[in-house]
Amino acid sequence: MNLGLLGFGVVGSGVCRIIDAQDTEELKDIHISKILVKDLSEGNDPRLCVNAEEILNDPDIDVIVECMGGLEPAHAIAAKTLAAGKSFVTSNKKMYATFQQELQQLSTTHGGRIGCEACVGGGIPWLHEVAHTRRIDAISSFRGIMNGTTNYILSGMTDTGAEFDEMLKQAQSLGYAERDPSDDIDGYDVRYKTCISAAHCFDAMAKPEEIPSYGIRNIKAKDIAWARKNQRIIKLIGQGTLKDGALQASVMPVFLHESDAMSRVSSNFNQIELNGATLGRAAFYGQGAGSLPTAHAVVQDIIDLKQNRTHAASHPHACNVDNEAVTGTYYVRTAKLASFTGLIDQKIDEETFLTAAVSMNGLLQAVKNADDPALFLAEVDR
Amino acid sequence: MNLGLLGFGVVGSGVCRIIDAQDTEELKDIHISKILVKDLSEGNDPRLCVNAEEILNDPDIDVIVECMGGLEPAHAIAAKTLAAGKSFVTSNKKMYATFQQELQQLSTTHGGRIGCEACVGGGIPWLHEVAHTRRIDAISSFRGIMNGTTNYILSGMTDTGAEFDEMLKQAQSLGYAERDPSDDIDGYDVRYKTCISAAHCFDAMAKPEEIPSYGIRNIKAKDIAWARKNQRIIKLIGQGTLKDGALQASVMPVFLHESDAMSRVSSNFNQIELNGATLGRAAFYGQGAGSLPTAHAVVQDIIDLKQNRTHAASHPHACNVDNEAVTGTYYVRTAKLASFTGLIDQKIDEETFLTAAVSMNGLLQAVKNADDPALFLAEVDR
Repeated sequence: MNLGLLGFGVVGSGVCRIIDAQDTEELKDIHISKILVKDLSEGNDPRLCVNAEEILNDPDIDVIVECMGGLEPAHAIAAKTLAAGKSFVTSNKKMYATFQQELQQLSTTHGGRIGCEACVGGGIPWLHEVAHTRRIDAISSFRGIMNGTTNYILSGMTDTGAEFDEMLKQAQSLGYAERDPSDDIDGYDVRYKTCISAAHCFDAMAKPEEIPSYGIRNIKAKDIAWARKNQRIIKLIGQGTLKDGALQASVMPVFLHESDAMSRVSSNFNQIELNGATLGRAAFYGQGAGSLPTAHAVVQDIIDLKQNRTHAASHPHACNVDNEAVTGTYYVRTAKLASFTGLIDQKIDEETFLTAAVSMNGLLQAVKNADDPALFLAEVDR
Repeated sequence: MNLGLLGFGVVGSGVCRIIDAQDTEELKDIHISKILVKDLSEGNDPRLCVNAEEILNDPDIDVIVECMGGLEPAHAIAAKTLAAGKSFVTSNKKMYATFQQELQQLSTTHGGRIGCEACVGGGIPWLHEVAHTRRIDAISSFRGIMNGTTNYILSGMTDTGAEFDEMLKQAQSLGYAERDPSDDIDGYDVRYKTCISAAHCFDAMAKPEEIPSYGIRNIKAKDIAWARKNQRIIKLIGQGTLKDGALQASVMPVFLHESDAMSRVSSNFNQIELNGATLGRAAFYGQGAGSLPTAHAVVQDIIDLKQNRTHAASHPHACNVDNEAVTGTYYVRTAKLASFTGLIDQKIDEETFLTAAVSMNGLLQAVKNADDPALFLAEVDR
């Protein structure tokens, strides 16, 4: 099996290292033929090239492995690969979540297969375990800590009492956070992963922008202090539930009870769990990012393609997000308390309150109306 | 694929329920032909029979699924099945760990395959994930909470300050512990699971009796209190490491640091983790026992057999346990302090001390010499 590798950054170089090492029986006969880079000065590997067409049109290349990131040209390359009946493996959650419906359709029509394990949970074999569980069980719900950057920041704030900005700077200096951290701290990254997880757990392909998503940009040490005092630990959680045929999904900070094992996942680790009909609650913990763990997930997809492993259970179809029936209690801190009259059950201080059990859609409509750029919102119970 | 199911208790009846339901594509064409029971009054299923030979000699039965428990006749049936070139799936950790080498040999010689996912971690897809990881990585170590009964007791003692006897009675009244709880509380159950895990992680098949194993029978509330005061939470841990070709393995209570996510696994849940060369630390959490979760694991093995899934990485061979190079610091409470002269680094009270970093084998020799039936031992650091 000959691969065309697109991108030679953190993940791409890890893929190259694992496959070139040929450490196991399963890696035998898997070879990287060409590696797309922006500039030939990125290394002195004779397989480097700068022309994507050269790779896409190479009849000896069976599988395209995309680790470039960004929407384009990754999306155009994915579409072209699948339209040619070739298989496509990607670690690009943003591109894949955004164009999931189109790419699945191309896969079904032309027979090329898609691997996207590395898009969710880094090295954690999450999508693999979802498919494995579904050989027997219907999955009713999933939830998880899916972003290492924000978990690092939240864990640090919880452990040290530091403010958000301080922990963000620390995460940036360690390479855990980008210079422009919006994708992580505003919840977009978790939204892509929640979207992809819903497709794998429930066959329900939603558009990412339909999933209400709130991040941690506005969190303050005093929110963490309130959590502590109430035996809670805050985590940024992506979750999905299939209820009476409707896909419920959201991304937001959640005050997990400290008896919940997920609340204890610290530093930049991820943990994702599912509920299966006979399996019950099962959780998977590991490195949510990093060169070799993420590359490990990419290579697992490649081995599945080589071994022609398929999962009969999966028949994804387009689906809308429908949170109409979701109710919960929420913690809101805002300068515009007046916008929330009728939703305030208990005032914590002049700018912070708890709701009673209310409709999530109703609360989010009030949040929208309040239009407060500094508002902080978290789920307390559901 | 036609199955002969041996045993119709907690696990066997769960297997029957999942397979008969035929809920997924993967379960199609898998049928239970006959069910071995001790007494036909166990149910009114027309497939019940009381004669094992009738099942073993049925030419239409492809796979024997053993959920009887106990060493014999389970072992004789396993050997006969494999000698006939048929495949064998079991949830019987005691029998499988004890006769692993013989049964593996029969499998290799006659071509029948063995499934034992349900032997370790109940519903947790632990052995599956070990094999999956090994498609790419060498595994250097594993450790885990592998026994729900003892975890329930230890979690309860930690949360409430209760003494051991009180929590054991509670576990028995909830059905989490047997009337004779020795297998659980003396560490034998975890020893079988550690033994099977080592074979899957490292291809190293040791005899279970070679793995030094200490349980929690002698733990007291004051040991837990000491742990608490030192930011530790006690868990019964089975662990294995492959170091310079030697298999290191042990079962004993460990004072995990409370920042270790594994310390937060509570109630009767299990969690097992591995260290992979490129994957890093990955952990798997779920129901370690119970009818449907354990049956789920049995049925996963059956589906693997049907789909003819094999793992090239696994070539288990006989191996001795060699803890010669293991050092650690230990907590010991004993009436026979005099037997430990030279090992006492810090006295906690008149009957309790901590060692410095010492040889595990040396300490265990001293424990043996002391011959104190009420001695309690735990690992603090390694």
